[in-house]
Amino acid sequence: MNSKTYERITRQRAADLAAAILTKAGFSGTHVSVMAQNMLDAQAQECHSHGLYRLITCSDMAATGLVNLTAEPKLTDHAPAIVKADAQGGNSLLAFKTALDMLTGKANDSGIAALAINNCFHYSALWWEVEQLSKRGFVALAMTPTHPYVAPFGGKEPLFGTNPLAFSWPRPEGEPYTFDFATSAAARGEVEIRSRRGESLPAGWAIDKNGNPTTESASALSGALLPFGGHKGSAISTMIELMAGPLIGDMLSSQTSAPGTKNDKGILHGELVIVFDPKRFGISPDSGESLFRQITDQGARLPSQRRRAARLQSDKDGLLVSSELLAELNRMA
Amino acid sequence: MNSKTYERITRQRAADLAAAILTKAGFSGTHVSVMAQNMLDAQAQECHSHGLYRLITCSDMAATGLVNLTAEPKLTDHAPAIVKADAQGGNSLLAFKTALDMLTGKANDSGIAALAINNCFHYSALWWEVEQLSKRGFVALAMTPTHPYVAPFGGKEPLFGTNPLAFSWPRPEGEPYTFDFATSAAARGEVEIRSRRGESLPAGWAIDKNGNPTTESASALSGALLPFGGHKGSAISTMIELMAGPLIGDMLSSQTSAPGTKNDKGILHGELVIVFDPKRFGISPDSGESLFRQITDQGARLPSQRRRAARLQSDKDGLLVSSELLAELNRMA
Repeated sequence: MNSKTYERITRQRAADLAAAILTKAGFSGTHVSVMAQNMLDAQAQECHSHGLYRLITCSDMAATGLVNLTAEPKLTDHAPAIVKADAQGGNSLLAFKTALDMLTGKANDSGIAALAINNCFHYSALWWEVEQLSKRGFVALAMTPTHPYVAPFGGKEPLFGTNPLAFSWPRPEGEPYTFDFATSAAARGEVEIRSRRGESLPAGWAIDKNGNPTTESASALSGALLPFGGHKGSAISTMIELMAGPLIGDMLSSQTSAPGTKNDKGILHGELVIVFDPKRFGISPDSGESLFRQITDQGARLPSQRRRAARLQSDKDGLLVSSELLAELNRMA
Repeated sequence: MNSKTYERITRQRAADLAAAILTKAGFSGTHVSVMAQNMLDAQAQECHSHGLYRLITCSDMAATGLVNLTAEPKLTDHAPAIVKADAQGGNSLLAFKTALDMLTGKANDSGIAALAINNCFHYSALWWEVEQLSKRGFVALAMTPTHPYVAPFGGKEPLFGTNPLAFSWPRPEGEPYTFDFATSAAARGEVEIRSRRGESLPAGWAIDKNGNPTTESASALSGALLPFGGHKGSAISTMIELMAGPLIGDMLSSQTSAPGTKNDKGILHGELVIVFDPKRFGISPDSGESLFRQITDQGARLPSQRRRAARLQSDKDGLLVSSELLAELNRMA
C-alpha cells in the first residue's frame, strides 16, 4: 500500500459507482442497495479490504454463476428465539437485513435470540452487522466459517476457515465497543499480498504443505495458515465451525471451496448471529463504561478506534480511495 | 509435581473425605453435595488444580466469612429465554444445579436460553457445567470473570480476570467435544507455582509492575499476566467481562478482589451460561463428527482427550491423588 496514491471522493460518487457496477454485474436492486451501503461504510472506515475493492471481487463472483444474484431470502420464524433466513444462494447481507426486525423483536421478547443465515455467499466483514444491532441497543455476537485455509493447532492440513468472530456492545455515547477478527493468525489476503510482493511472513503465521513452520509466503499458500493463539484460538475456531455450521444445518469450511478454486464443492455456507437485549438482562449500565475507561486510561486501545477516526474524517472530507482502484472502478461502471 | 508421589483411592473414600471436610467447614448439605461431586469429577479427570485440592481452599475461604456457606439460591424466571439464579453469596455450583431444569426447559422451548448466575463465590472449572448440559443434548457456552490479574493488550496494569471460556458440544458416542481455558496467556496458579520454585516464565506470559515484559515469576506476580493471543485474546477477555459482568447486572473483575487480598472489595461476581438446543436449530448431525475426524486424522488433538483417558483409568482403578494432599485431607477430615 505504501507506493499507492489515494484521493477522496464524495460518498454520493462512491454510491453511484457501486450501484452502477453491481447492477451491471447482475445483482437485483435489493441486493445492490444493501451491498453498496455495506461497502461504502467499510470504505468510510478505511477498511480497504472490505470496501469498494469488493465491487471487483463481487463482479468476478457474479460472473462465475456461483451466486444467485436476484435471490429473495426466505425468512422463517423457526422457534420463539430462532430466526432462520435462507439466503437461497444469494449474498448474506440481504438475508441479514430482511431478518433484522424479526430478530430484534425476538431478542426483545425472549431476552436472547439467534439468527441462522443459511446458503449464503458471504464476503462482508461482520462488524457491520453486529453494529447494526448495537446501534439499536442490543449486544451482538456473529460468526461464520469461510473456506479451508487454516490447520488446527498441532495439525498440518487446511481444515478451518479464517472463521471471523465479531462482537458489539452499545455505549451511551452512540459509538459501540466492537471487535471483529479472523481466528487465523493472519488474514489470508495479507499472505496473498506478501506472496505477490515476494515478501516473507512473521513466524507463527503458517505451515508448508508438509506441516512444517514456514515464513515463505508461497509455501504458506500451498500449506496452511495457523490459528491465532495456539490451541486456544484453534478451539475457538472449532466452535465457530460447529455453531455456524452443523448447529444451523449448514456447511463446515471443509465442505466448501474458496471462490476461484476448481472443484465441485460450493462456495455457500452459513452464519450465526446471537443477540442479547440488555434491558431484559438487568444490565448495570455504567460498568461497561468503567471498563473502557480503565482500558484506555492505562494506554491500551479499544478495538475499532482507528476505524472510528477514519469515519469521522470521511464524513467531513469524503471517502479515501486508492487512485488505482478508483481508475479500475471508473472503467467498470 | 515431578517430585510428588501419588496414590489411588476409591471414589467412595474421596467422597467421604470431601463430605467430612466441607461439612466441617460449615457448608450446608446441599452445597456439600454438589461441590463434592464437582471436585471428585475433576480429580477423576486428573484436573488436580480443581479437584480435591479445592477442599483446602474452600475451607480457607469458608473461614474468611466472605462466602455464605448455607445460602439458598434464588431462582427467577426472568424472561422467556433468561433464567436468573442469585447465589446469595454462596458457591456458584448450587445455583447452577438449581437452575438446570428451568434453563434446559427454556432452551428447549425457545431454541436458545441464557442463565445468569449472580452474587456467587466461584472456584470451579467451567467444563463441568457445560458438560452437564451437553450430556443432556445441548450445546453450551459458559464464561465468568475472576479477579484483576491480567492487563489488556497494550496496557500495563491488571484489569481483567483470567476469564475462562468453556464450550461443550454433544456427540453421539456420549463423550462431548469440550474446551475450557483461561483467556490469560497462563493460569495465575501456574505463575504462583513457578514463583515458589524460583523458576522463570516463558516470554509472553507477563509484564512487571512498570508494564515491561518479564520472565521473572516474582515480577509477574507484582505486575500482571497478559492475555493469550495478543489483541484478539484481549478482546475476547473484554467480551467476557462485559457479558458475564454488566450485561447480567454483576461485577467486572476489577470491582472484586482476589481471595486473600486485603481490601474492601468483595470476592463475589457473576457467570453467564448460554444454551442452544440443537434439535430446535435444524442441526446436521454428522457434520460435527466429520470435523472431529478431520482434526484427529491429521494428528491434531481434541481438547480434553487427556482428561477422558484419565477418567477411564480413574473409573477402573480409583482416583489419583498426591500423597502429600491426601495426608493433608486426612488431617482435615
